[in-house]
Amino acid sequence: MASKNIFQFFVPKDKKFFPLFEQVSSNLIEMGKLLKEAVNQNDIAERKKIFRTIEDYEHKCDDLSHQIHLELSKNFITPFDREDIYSLTSSLDDVADFIHGASNRMDLYKVHKISQPIMDLADLILEATIEVNNAIHELRNLQNIRQITDACVRINSIENKADYIFDNAVANLFEFETNAIELIKYKEVLSAMETATDRCEDVANVLESILVKNA
Amino acid sequence: MASKNIFQFFVPKDKKFFPLFEQVSSNLIEMGKLLKEAVNQNDIAERKKIFRTIEDYEHKCDDLSHQIHLELSKNFITPFDREDIYSLTSSLDDVADFIHGASNRMDLYKVHKISQPIMDLADLILEATIEVNNAIHELRNLQNIRQITDACVRINSIENKADYIFDNAVANLFEFETNAIELIKYKEVLSAMETATDRCEDVANVLESILVKNA
Amino acid sequence: MASKNIFQFFVPKDKKFFPLFEQVSSNLIEMGKLLKEAVNQNDIAERKKIFRTIEDYEHKCDDLSHQIHLELSKNFITPFDREDIYSLTSSLDDVADFIHGASNRMDLYKVHKISQPIMDLADLILEATIEVNNAIHELRNLQNIRQITDACVRINSIENKADYIFDNAVANLFEFETNAIELIKYKEVLSAMETATDRCEDVANVLESILVKNA
Repeated sequence: MASKNIFQFFVPKDKKFFPLFEQVSSNLIEMGKLLKEAVNQNDIAERKKIFRTIEDYEHKCDDLSHQIHLELSKNFITPFDREDIYSLTSSLDDVADFIHGASNRMDLYKVHKISQPIMDLADLILEATIEVNNAIHELRNLQNIRQITDACVRINSIENKADYIFDNAVANLFEFETNAIELIKYKEVLSAMETATDRCEDVANVLESILVKNA
Repeated sequence: MASKNIFQFFVPKDKKFFPLFEQVSSNLIEMGKLLKEAVNQNDIAERKKIFRTIEDYEHKCDDLSHQIHLELSKNFITPFDREDIYSLTSSLDDVADFIHGASNRMDLYKVHKISQPIMDLADLILEATIEVNNAIHELRNLQNIRQITDACVRINSIENKADYIFDNAVANLFEFETNAIELIKYKEVLSAMETATDRCEDVANVLESILVKNA
Repeated sequence: MASKNIFQFFVPKDKKFFPLFEQVSSNLIEMGKLLKEAVNQNDIAERKKIFRTIEDYEHKCDDLSHQIHLELSKNFITPFDREDIYSLTSSLDDVADFIHGASNRMDLYKVHKISQPIMDLADLILEATIEVNNAIHELRNLQNIRQITDACVRINSIENKADYIFDNAVANLFEFETNAIELIKYKEVLSAMETATDRCEDVANVLESILVKNA
C-alpha cells in the first residue's frame, strides 16, 4: 500500500532553488518574445541578430541548469524531491532548446519567407512560456495550487492549438508546395516550433506530478 | 543500500484507479479496431467517418486521464506509487495520441491509397492494444504477474515486427517512389503507426517497472 | 521537506548488476568501433558484413538488458534504487538501438556514398561510447564521483559537437542537394547518428541523477 508521505512538505523559505527556476522561466519568456520579434522582422540581417540573441539566452539557460545541479549536490535539504528538481530542470531546459532549435533552423536553412502558421506558432510559444513562468512563480507558495493547475490547463490548451496549426500547416504544404525541398524545410521549422509547445506541456506534467506527490 | 520496501503491496480492492485504467485500455482496443476498419474501407467518405470516430475515442481517453488525475489528487491511498499511476496514465494516453495521429495524417494529407505495410501496421497496432488491455486487466490481481510479463513480452515482439515492416516499407519508398512529396506523406503515416506500437512498448515498460517495485 | 535518505548508500560488493552494466557498455564501444569501421570501408559488400555484426551486438545488448531485469526480479537488495537500475538499463539499450538504427538505415536505404559529416559523427559516437563505458566502470566505486561527472561533462560536450555537425550537414543538404529523395535519405542517416549521441547524453543524465540521489 503506497500512501502519501505526510512528512513531505515544501520548504517555504528555500532561497536557492526557487530563484534559479524563476530565472530560467523568465529567460524562457525572453526567448519567446525574441522569437516572435524575429518572425515579425522583415530585415533578414536584423532577424539574424535576434537569432544570435536567442542563442545567448539558450546558453544562459544551460548555465542556470548547471547551477541547479551544483546546488543539488551541495544541499542536503531541498524544497521537494531531488529527482523532481532534476526533472523540472531538464524539462525547462528542453523548452529553451526547442525555441532555439526553431530559430536555428530558420537561420541555417535560410527560411526567409515567414508564413502565417510560423507567426501563429510564435505567438503560441510566447503564451506558453508566460504560463510556464506563472506556474513556476507559484511553486514557492503551495497555498496557490489552483494557480499552478490553472496555468497547466492553459498550457495544455495552447499545446492543442499549436498541434492544430501545425497539422493544418503541414497539410497545406502537402497540398500547395510543389518544391519538395522547400516543403521539408518549412516542415522542419514548424515541427521544432510545435515541439517547443510540447515541451512546455512536459513542464506542466512535471509540475502536476510534483503537486500529486507533495500537495 | 536500497531495498524493496516490504510494506509496499498492492491494494487489491481498489475501486477507483483500476476501473479507469481498464476503460482506457478498452478504448485503445476500439481505436485499434477502428484504424484497421478504416484502412480496409475503400470508400473515402466512409473512411473519413471512421477517422472522426477515432478522434472521439481520443477525446474519451483524454477525459479518462483527467479523471485519473482527479482521483490522484483526492485519494490518500493508491494501489501503487502515485508516480507510477501518473506514468501509466500518460503512457496509455500516448498510445491513443499516436493511433489518432496516424488516422489524422491519412486524413489531412489525403493519403487515399492504402498500401500493404499500412494495413500490416494497422493489424499489429490492434494486436498490441489487445495485449495492453490484457496486461492492464491483470494489474488488479498481482497473483498473475506471469500473465502481465507474458503480455509485455508479446508487446515487445509486436513492436519488433512493426519496426521491421516500417523499415522495409521506407526502404521500398526510397527505392520505388519517385515523387518526393508522396514519399514524405507515406513515411509520415507509417512513422505515426510505428510510433503507436513504440508507445505500447512504453506502457509495457511502465508495467514492468511497477512489477519490479511492487512484486 | 524532502531530505536525502542517509541510509541510502551503494553496495560496494555487488557482483550481479555492475558486471552486467559493464558488459553492455563494453558492447557499446564495440558497436561504436564497428560503425566507424563501416563508414571507412569502401567495399560495399564488406561494409554490409559489418552492419550485420552491429546487428548481432544489438541483440547481445537486448539479452543483457533482459538479464538485468531478471536479476532485478530475483534480488531484494540492489546497489542503488531499482527504478534507477531500470532507467540506466533502458538508456544504455537506447544507445545500442540508435547505433544499430544508423547502420540499418545506411544499409536499407542504400546510402553507399559516405559523406564527411557521416564520418565525423561516427567518430563522435565512438568517443561518446568510450566515455559512457568509463562512467559505468566507475559506478562500482563511488569514491570516484568526480570521474563519473567528468565523463558526463565530456559526453555533453561530444553531444554538442554532434549537434553542430548535424545542423551544418543538414543546412548543406538543403543548399546543395537538388534531389529531394537523396536529401531525405542522408538526413535520416545523420539524424539517427545524432540521436545516438543524444542517447549517450541521456545515460549521462541518468548517471547524474543516480549520483544526486546517492552521493
